[in-house]
Amino acid sequence: MYGAGDVRVTDAPDPTIQLATDAVVRVTRACVCGSDLHPYHSMPASVDGTPMGHEFIGVVEQVGGEVTTLSPGDFVIAPFAVSCGTCEFCRAGLHTSCVRGGFWSDARIGTAGGQAEAVRVPLADGTLVKVPGVGDSTDEALLASLLTLSDVYGTGWHAAVKGGVREGSTVTVVGDGAVGLLAVLSATQLGAERVVLMGRHQERTDLGRELGATDVVAERGDEGIAAVRDLTDGGSEIVLEAVGHMPAYEQAVGIVRPGGVISRVGVPQYDDAPVGFGSLFGPNITLTGGPAPVRAYIEELLPAVLDGTVDPGRVFDLTVGLEEAPKAYAAMDERAALKVMIRP
Amino acid sequence: MYGAGDVRVTDAPDPTIQLATDAVVRVTRACVCGSDLHPYHSMPASVDGTPMGHEFIGVVEQVGGEVTTLSPGDFVIAPFAVSCGTCEFCRAGLHTSCVRGGFWSDARIGTAGGQAEAVRVPLADGTLVKVPGVGDSTDEALLASLLTLSDVYGTGWHAAVKGGVREGSTVTVVGDGAVGLLAVLSATQLGAERVVLMGRHQERTDLGRELGATDVVAERGDEGIAAVRDLTDGGSEIVLEAVGHMPAYEQAVGIVRPGGVISRVGVPQYDDAPVGFGSLFGPNITLTGGPAPVRAYIEELLPAVLDGTVDPGRVFDLTVGLEEAPKAYAAMDERAALKVMIRP
Repeated sequence: MYGAGDVRVTDAPDPTIQLATDAVVRVTRACVCGSDLHPYHSMPASVDGTPMGHEFIGVVEQVGGEVTTLSPGDFVIAPFAVSCGTCEFCRAGLHTSCVRGGFWSDARIGTAGGQAEAVRVPLADGTLVKVPGVGDSTDEALLASLLTLSDVYGTGWHAAVKGGVREGSTVTVVGDGAVGLLAVLSATQLGAERVVLMGRHQERTDLGRELGATDVVAERGDEGIAAVRDLTDGGSEIVLEAVGHMPAYEQAVGIVRPGGVISRVGVPQYDDAPVGFGSLFGPNITLTGGPAPVRAYIEELLPAVLDGTVDPGRVFDLTVGLEEAPKAYAAMDERAALKVMIRP
Repeated sequence: MYGAGDVRVTDAPDPTIQLATDAVVRVTRACVCGSDLHPYHSMPASVDGTPMGHEFIGVVEQVGGEVTTLSPGDFVIAPFAVSCGTCEFCRAGLHTSCVRGGFWSDARIGTAGGQAEAVRVPLADGTLVKVPGVGDSTDEALLASLLTLSDVYGTGWHAAVKGGVREGSTVTVVGDGAVGLLAVLSATQLGAERVVLMGRHQERTDLGRELGATDVVAERGDEGIAAVRDLTDGGSEIVLEAVGHMPAYEQAVGIVRPGGVISRVGVPQYDDAPVGFGSLFGPNITLTGGPAPVRAYIEELLPAVLDGTVDPGRVFDLTVGLEEAPKAYAAMDERAALKVMIRP
């Protein structure tokens, strides 16, 4: 990405092993994230550009001398953050705070993004999750669902876990993007009895109903708040915020029940927000969430994906070739597509 | 209080039963709260004034016809909020969100404050906690400790409970006022292994050490942050914020460990605060807390107070008569006193 709205497909040198803990992965499928739209709207123009993409699945091509759990030919899921797997935070399941890792675009990580033919993966043992038996599968539905484990499904799951969703919970999900829809699925899997989905794109909210939403609220602002408060008899005990813009935060504050939880996984596009007596403090609201340590959840979520019990890959509604990546961004930006897969 | 810095002792009509759910309580001891200092600094001048005080213990004088659990002569603790005891929120232990109750100063509650000779207590069955066997005790230490159950001890306890303090926790308490010191006591009671107290008044932090603080950090700002991060090897997993001013919030954000919890019980003197990627979101920090439902905690905390295992009343370091109430505010405001008891 060379600036707001300026995505180009360029030739780059083939990635190679640079550290003994690296792997090189040939990308089978990648995709565009809702959070990629934030720089797509606001990135200052740059001459060098920034490699994009933090969600991919693929096949290991080479491994460095210290990589012990992976071999060439292994099918792997790459979580959206690089993590060592051994530090205090990784052991606690908070891989996004890994002391050695970081996000794909971090200079510290020094690697390129996943919207590419191949990627150098640092800290490969800690980062990549091998999925035996997939090999060179051409089951498109399975590949799509496996790809969601690199970010959006794990992120929706994180929202629900941090929100404390349990058997019988009443949950409202703010946002009908891929993460919002998979937060609906996650809340349902965790036993929520009532799942209200706030979104105004009917194709998406229809899918949300299939994934478990019991109610849909298309209104926004004060009307949306009134509708949810009415449906939930005074407010939702758990709100999962899957957008990241200030109106979504305000929506969450408006619909949460006293003593309730707002769990955010939409990357905040603001620094400050209301947290005072009239918003969070007075009614004892808990604000939680953050970038999902999806690496912590993959093993737990994988079996139901592999056996077809769940089908999170349904959030993909368009697939393009790598050379059409700019079209993928435009389609998501215009809401013409919910989530776009990229096939190198 | 008639405005910032303007506290007067005035004659008022004797309180009477107005609703069948009321009680009239003769006040044995009341006190000034750290949160009373906020209006003491900022209240606009008014002709009518506002009755003050939300912490008191006393003896029931009269009860309305529907009061079933109290009789004249009962010794009671009055929590800092009025609550019905039967609504959804009271049953969930969130009495500060009671649908029928409110704070003593709320117009809806329609009663006067506790810095008085006697008080009409609405919703008496739900609000007051009877303590058998105290009667007309003159055990000053016991009375002081019982008085802390009306606010500061329950508030410190709420901070620790909402912060998730458990056996082995590392906890940092921001603020060496009465609530901060009793948050230290509470964290210790809940099994914290390490309790760092941030405060710069040595008499207070000395008492904090006696109540369980293992370390004291007197520095503030960046120096204070660096000192706590150093002591806790990179940040405190739980931070209890017992002040309410923005610098305390910033301090909390600066010292909390990735994945950790900031539990606020200091009444926020700000509306907006940093919650974005660089503060709470990126490191998956949870922000929780609010006005303590102290009513929910009194029965749990009472036995150790009655048998002398704990002595939270030590936070009182000055006692004045009711006619000297203005002096009580001034002493706390000037930090000449930690917490001032008022004896009507």
